[in-house]
Amino acid sequence: MKYKVAALHELRKPFKIEEFDLPEVSGEQVLVKTAGCGLCHSDLHIWLGEVAVAPRFPLVLGHEPSGYVAAKGGGVPESIRVGMPVLVNGGYYRRENIYSLRGANQLADLEAQMWAGGIHVGCYAEYFLVPSYRYLVPAEGLEDLDKASVLSDAGLTPYRAFKHAMAILQARQYAEPGDIVVVVGVGGLGIFGAQYVSRLAPHLDLVLADVRDEALEFAGKFARPLALINARRENPLEAIKKTAHDRKVVAVLDFVGSSKTVSTYIKALSPGGVYVLIGLAEPEATIPIFDTVAQEYAVLGSLWGSIGDLYEVAGLAKRGLVDYRGVVTKRWRLDEINEAFMQMEKGTQLGRMVVSFS
Amino acid sequence: MKYKVAALHELRKPFKIEEFDLPEVSGEQVLVKTAGCGLCHSDLHIWLGEVAVAPRFPLVLGHEPSGYVAAKGGGVPESIRVGMPVLVNGGYYRRENIYSLRGANQLADLEAQMWAGGIHVGCYAEYFLVPSYRYLVPAEGLEDLDKASVLSDAGLTPYRAFKHAMAILQARQYAEPGDIVVVVGVGGLGIFGAQYVSRLAPHLDLVLADVRDEALEFAGKFARPLALINARRENPLEAIKKTAHDRKVVAVLDFVGSSKTVSTYIKALSPGGVYVLIGLAEPEATIPIFDTVAQEYAVLGSLWGSIGDLYEVAGLAKRGLVDYRGVVTKRWRLDEINEAFMQMEKGTQLGRMVVSFS
Amino acid sequence: MKYKVAALHELRKPFKIEEFDLPEVSGEQVLVKTAGCGLCHSDLHIWLGEVAVAPRFPLVLGHEPSGYVAAKGGGVPESIRVGMPVLVNGGYYRRENIYSLRGANQLADLEAQMWAGGIHVGCYAEYFLVPSYRYLVPAEGLEDLDKASVLSDAGLTPYRAFKHAMAILQARQYAEPGDIVVVVGVGGLGIFGAQYVSRLAPHLDLVLADVRDEALEFAGKFARPLALINARRENPLEAIKKTAHDRKVVAVLDFVGSSKTVSTYIKALSPGGVYVLIGLAEPEATIPIFDTVAQEYAVLGSLWGSIGDLYEVAGLAKRGLVDYRGVVTKRWRLDEINEAFMQMEKGTQLGRMVVSFS
Amino acid sequence: MKYKVAALHELRKPFKIEEFDLPEVSGEQVLVKTAGCGLCHSDLHIWLGEVAVAPRFPLVLGHEPSGYVAAKGGGVPESIRVGMPVLVNGGYYRRENIYSLRGANQLADLEAQMWAGGIHVGCYAEYFLVPSYRYLVPAEGLEDLDKASVLSDAGLTPYRAFKHAMAILQARQYAEPGDIVVVVGVGGLGIFGAQYVSRLAPHLDLVLADVRDEALEFAGKFARPLALINARRENPLEAIKKTAHDRKVVAVLDFVGSSKTVSTYIKALSPGGVYVLIGLAEPEATIPIFDTVAQEYAVLGSLWGSIGDLYEVAGLAKRGLVDYRGVVTKRWRLDEINEAFMQMEKGTQLGRMVVSFS
Repeated sequence: MKYKVAALHELRKPFKIEEFDLPEVSGEQVLVKTAGCGLCHSDLHIWLGEVAVAPRFPLVLGHEPSGYVAAKGGGVPESIRVGMPVLVNGGYYRRENIYSLRGANQLADLEAQMWAGGIHVGCYAEYFLVPSYRYLVPAEGLEDLDKASVLSDAGLTPYRAFKHAMAILQARQYAEPGDIVVVVGVGGLGIFGAQYVSRLAPHLDLVLADVRDEALEFAGKFARPLALINARRENPLEAIKKTAHDRKVVAVLDFVGSSKTVSTYIKALSPGGVYVLIGLAEPEATIPIFDTVAQEYAVLGSLWGSIGDLYEVAGLAKRGLVDYRGVVTKRWRLDEINEAFMQMEKGTQLGRMVVSFS
Repeated sequence: MKYKVAALHELRKPFKIEEFDLPEVSGEQVLVKTAGCGLCHSDLHIWLGEVAVAPRFPLVLGHEPSGYVAAKGGGVPESIRVGMPVLVNGGYYRRENIYSLRGANQLADLEAQMWAGGIHVGCYAEYFLVPSYRYLVPAEGLEDLDKASVLSDAGLTPYRAFKHAMAILQARQYAEPGDIVVVVGVGGLGIFGAQYVSRLAPHLDLVLADVRDEALEFAGKFARPLALINARRENPLEAIKKTAHDRKVVAVLDFVGSSKTVSTYIKALSPGGVYVLIGLAEPEATIPIFDTVAQEYAVLGSLWGSIGDLYEVAGLAKRGLVDYRGVVTKRWRLDEINEAFMQMEKGTQLGRMVVSFS
Repeated sequence: MKYKVAALHELRKPFKIEEFDLPEVSGEQVLVKTAGCGLCHSDLHIWLGEVAVAPRFPLVLGHEPSGYVAAKGGGVPESIRVGMPVLVNGGYYRRENIYSLRGANQLADLEAQMWAGGIHVGCYAEYFLVPSYRYLVPAEGLEDLDKASVLSDAGLTPYRAFKHAMAILQARQYAEPGDIVVVVGVGGLGIFGAQYVSRLAPHLDLVLADVRDEALEFAGKFARPLALINARRENPLEAIKKTAHDRKVVAVLDFVGSSKTVSTYIKALSPGGVYVLIGLAEPEATIPIFDTVAQEYAVLGSLWGSIGDLYEVAGLAKRGLVDYRGVVTKRWRLDEINEAFMQMEKGTQLGRMVVSFS
Repeated sequence: MKYKVAALHELRKPFKIEEFDLPEVSGEQVLVKTAGCGLCHSDLHIWLGEVAVAPRFPLVLGHEPSGYVAAKGGGVPESIRVGMPVLVNGGYYRRENIYSLRGANQLADLEAQMWAGGIHVGCYAEYFLVPSYRYLVPAEGLEDLDKASVLSDAGLTPYRAFKHAMAILQARQYAEPGDIVVVVGVGGLGIFGAQYVSRLAPHLDLVLADVRDEALEFAGKFARPLALINARRENPLEAIKKTAHDRKVVAVLDFVGSSKTVSTYIKALSPGGVYVLIGLAEPEATIPIFDTVAQEYAVLGSLWGSIGDLYEVAGLAKRGLVDYRGVVTKRWRLDEINEAFMQMEKGTQLGRMVVSFS
């Protein structure tokens, strides 16, 4: 049996829609029939050759999937049933180590190139093979399953970042009601970040910063921001200070990750504040040593999310605490993928786009 | 009644030994007869005019004190007795806020200029006035009380830094027995840092790095380092990797805090590792965004220590778990303070020096 | 100058309204003109002689105050202004120790009998003296300041309990969206407990349990309970199980604290669940050893709240996240205090009552 | 091919040495050639019929194993090599859930009866089958591998309990150097508990309590106890108070778990102290509600240990921080197992016994 795939044979060239043979499943493996595959800028970076991993061609990209269990190996428990809707955590790892044993599978084995597409799932395809049922998260109750695919990365990554920030704030106990969290960069991920702050930390206030008015406005609809700051038009530090008045800025979630965002927004933090880096726009950033020490800042990197984190994100979505359907503003068919990538490269689309198979 | 003080009337000029009037004590105030006052590079930086705080002259420096209660105000509890040996936490703050209420008095009110010497105690003097008995830590059982003065900063600051690192490691649970902590910079503070790692985290191994062989050797006597790395003679990253072999580097305690130390040693960290910044050698440092995110590094600033932290340091010293007497390699008399500062500026002295009043 | 006080000269006898001389204030002391003083069952227990502390007569009870700064000693900072509205944390302690230094003033010195009324503030009076401005929490922006008095205990105690529970859940990370917290006992404190769960932990669901239908219904209006369980009419464990279905019960907040509540509701917990004891209805409780071990339960006592906790509660109230005005269902005048105590002893009043001075 | 097994066909009857067929291995399974199998009282309780799990006969007990990889299925990674020495965590679970995803596999699926012997591994046999390589912990460098078997339970269980206690103490920060941990019950597990306190928490002091002088003396050799308390001969509370003098008792690790131990030793705790329950001697215990609340005690159950915990225990053993060889005081051959159980029932053996296959 055959299935359609968007295959890449050379970087920076168009994808070709080809037919592959459906793989056999054995052991813990699960074959998933794709419902949706979110279009993520990481794929664009790979396509552009900006990622240091040597690709094996034909390359099948896509790591933000949802789908239905189509077939399962003999080592898969009964609770995983054929036809069951699932999200999939693509943080596949080769062997147990202290990270996987502590529930951080996505940190477990960074060099791993287990599957087509480097670290990727390969869901720009009608089917994709998951190495173990352990990476599946039940998705019953999630409407528009194709759109729910974005939870597997765009929804997941900010959730872990948010939890990192909250864990520091909870341990230090310096944050007071009304204190402020700044979300920097309100693209696909930032919109989710804003939602988590507004809905899961109601004692804190939210400020959104970006360089695009329309993105700020769009993101603002998903949360309850105190202020929208266009860092191109106004001095963001002054704008934050004005908004904050006598309240503290206890956390920044930086979904851009450029030299400029880091060196700018870290200065907004109050003593004991936490700066979470998620974006990867540039290779390096400069931090102020004196302020970091004298104000005991915590600068934390946050990577994607673990399987356990994805369980929680799915749970929040089922509970109506995360709006993912509104975030997805465009559905593409698989054979439109080249057009979709061009659109992604332009960077003007608000929210998130998916390749939909429904 | 009069007492002797090393007074500064102009930056970068010699101290003059002068006589001041003993102040009256009232309320919660306590007058302490100085036993020792540790010579700290922060004083040198103030003296050199490198600190942005506008000094009020005559300036009395010194913020690493030990001494005996000499007089107390009416609002001081009975448990504080005249003659009692004490350490003093110089993190005086003006009014309660969320930081002091959460036990981080040294973060409470950074702009405070309550006393002669900016944020300083002013213990280069036969007596000094403490604004409240709350800053005193009982020091019974600490031999050589003049030397014990170094616990109030050189012993305290690395302890808080060590606790910051351990809290992250404890929460994440990625550290395994035999994993490594690197102490960068083994001057007065680094020697204490090395002791805390060796004695309070016996499941971890220790590597010391510096650019001076004699400092490395001296520090090595206080701990059980796996390796001494002279970063001037060998590539420190390679040396660490060779020493670590298949073990992880889970933490770096950086007592230098230069652009070079940060950008070098952060690369030694394993995923989930923690980099604690304590030193303030330079204003800025560059961190790698990709590694920080992809490996979920935590970069934490750590400032001095709270009163509660100093209680714990004093307890460790009483228990024989911190050697402070060996760290103090030179005692000066108050009237030798100019010579002492010249020696400090040269930077060749191993360990820590104190002005001793005994 | 004189002020009116409800003085007790013998246990179990009526209070007498008497006039006392206004005290002088000195040092850090602050005299507060009472706005409201919440009627708390602890006062009733003292009045009934059920508390092991030997009272000194005349006894002035009342430890849940709000008011206005009327006078201040010379050691009180400028930021505390005469006329300023305040809440007061009554956890006065005699001297610093590790508990106060770590921000848990209410644990610092349990035997303390510093003031009239044992551990109590003595706010059944027109004025009361606070030993230090440090116990004051600014209350600007809190409407109906007399009613806001209930935040100082009825609002504070459940907040700390809630935070204890959340800290364990956050550290363990077993709780999933939709999991359940059971609040047992929905008197004055339980209503606040229910509010914190509903508003600050929106990812969790809430179940209320009590033995009074009208109390359940009243409390239910302040939160979004999934179910109201009358433990007198139905088997509470079965009712919880039915409500929870396939979701876990991750925490119980027990505001009753009887042998029966503990041994009943602890069985509802899922593995890793946390049982917070707040109520003191009976001296002892029986816990199942096997379940506690095999399911790694955490049973935590929680006492009142610290000054820092009260800052946060005041902040939540200002932010509209805690409804205290609706909780106060009855205002008494000071000269009605005997009637008020009789009403409290009957136990039929819903919500909380205050003695109001406005 | 055949292998020898100590098979039980009826409770409370002698084991019979029988020959079973070696199983095929497939998928993630690993066949382990037993080196040692620790004799644990849990086995005795099953044998006596005191455990509520309905056994399936023939029953093969033993859940504290060490051994060598003998064969592996096709789904086992290369890093698991035939001949490799291993410890095995017997906390097998059927399917992922939030507990396994958060690294607490031993909590994941309590009802599981996957293998011969209920929740047990079945290592009273020359070989035993492990359902997945994930339960294996590399044991290179552990001398006397048969004796190292005791690390898989007797060494593991107290380690997790110790970590539970330390996590609370670290979060609360009330413990000061010189404060005391009491280990109650110094049988096989308690000796390990004492070691962890002495070696991994050198800032704390240790008190051992038991009802047998010879057990106290034996255990005392593995640690640095401040006092040995025979609770049969002296009032343990008074003895602890006398030893503690002005220091706090911050934790109790109770390896007995009887009504008496809990109600006795909980009273020794200082405010904020933690009581960890590990032993299961009796079904219920009574705790004092007032003290638990007013002193904010934490009572925590602790169950066995996770795979990650066993990694750490193995690491500590390799590092010489846990003495397991001295704890094993007797080796039995498999055909002596009935004699061994009689000896275990007598309860006079100090330390731990193993069935050895070397």
